[in-house]
Amino acid sequence: MKYCSACGNAVSLRTPEGDHLPRHICDVCGTIHYENPRLIVGCVPEYEGKILLCKRAIEPRRGFWTLPAGFMENGESLQMAAARESMEEALAKVKIEEPVAIVNVLHAHQVHVIFRARLLDPNIGVGPESLEVGLFDESEIPWPEIAFRSVEFALRRYLDDRREGREKLYFHDLTPPPSG
Amino acid sequence: MKYCSACGNAVSLRTPEGDHLPRHICDVCGTIHYENPRLIVGCVPEYEGKILLCKRAIEPRRGFWTLPAGFMENGESLQMAAARESMEEALAKVKIEEPVAIVNVLHAHQVHVIFRARLLDPNIGVGPESLEVGLFDESEIPWPEIAFRSVEFALRRYLDDRREGREKLYFHDLTPPPSG
Repeated sequence: MKYCSACGNAVSLRTPEGDHLPRHICDVCGTIHYENPRLIVGCVPEYEGKILLCKRAIEPRRGFWTLPAGFMENGESLQMAAARESMEEALAKVKIEEPVAIVNVLHAHQVHVIFRARLLDPNIGVGPESLEVGLFDESEIPWPEIAFRSVEFALRRYLDDRREGREKLYFHDLTPPPSG
Repeated sequence: MKYCSACGNAVSLRTPEGDHLPRHICDVCGTIHYENPRLIVGCVPEYEGKILLCKRAIEPRRGFWTLPAGFMENGESLQMAAARESMEEALAKVKIEEPVAIVNVLHAHQVHVIFRARLLDPNIGVGPESLEVGLFDESEIPWPEIAFRSVEFALRRYLDDRREGREKLYFHDLTPPPSG
């Protein structure tokens, strides 16, 4: 951020009185511009024991498989966001249930919330952000081609719980992966 | 938002190609400025059966009682944010446990996440955003003076669960309160 979105003048990075962190503050109108973590919301849609996955048509991680998920929008609930993403990415009608995983992605300033879900109709299709969609038995899940660590975490906890006949909520913190 | 925070030129509200919602887009450099819901994170700190509440020194709802809670910052986890807010508002050292409530505040573009917590030391104090802090027995909680509906929701579910000897996670959607 270099300019004030309210008045168009330059901002500088300083700590407001009474605050404890530097913020972008407008040098002219004084507006303080806060930046906060964003929510990514998705779900694990299940149909007759199979899991819905989407092959990404967009970066990052184009060509890798993921659960339907994306940025939560203003005016919707977490559950509405998760259902909308399933519809957009896989033309999938789902019933959102309890959350399985909440992942703090510290370096990306994101919180990922993944719900359990029932796929209500097996007629799914390829949305504009997907190259391919499919229903996978546990043994068919392409683990090395899963797009994101948060998705792998949620999917593994989901399958563990299903095997054990329980439904827990799992938290996880992610920091940058080791390089090389 | 009237001006681009990247280049300082005017933005206009239009739907980017392939998107489904209008966004503020810079007329000159083309930057798309997304706005997403923010996370407010807090906890219910308990010490020997009593609940920590803070009387707000700042607007909105100055003079009303609340649980320690506030905006999550970049670089922290939900749990770190909840613990930090307890320290800032009540000089309270807490151990964050499982979440009790997640409230979608649709009109405010916020998601409120409230955790169960143990207050580790009863020596609490008045932080800069509080007029007063205190430990309340269930029968002493000033219900008509609770600042926010999400806080009342979390607190009531917490106390219900404690009475019933269970620990569940409760979701709730809030829309604007009826006027008058």
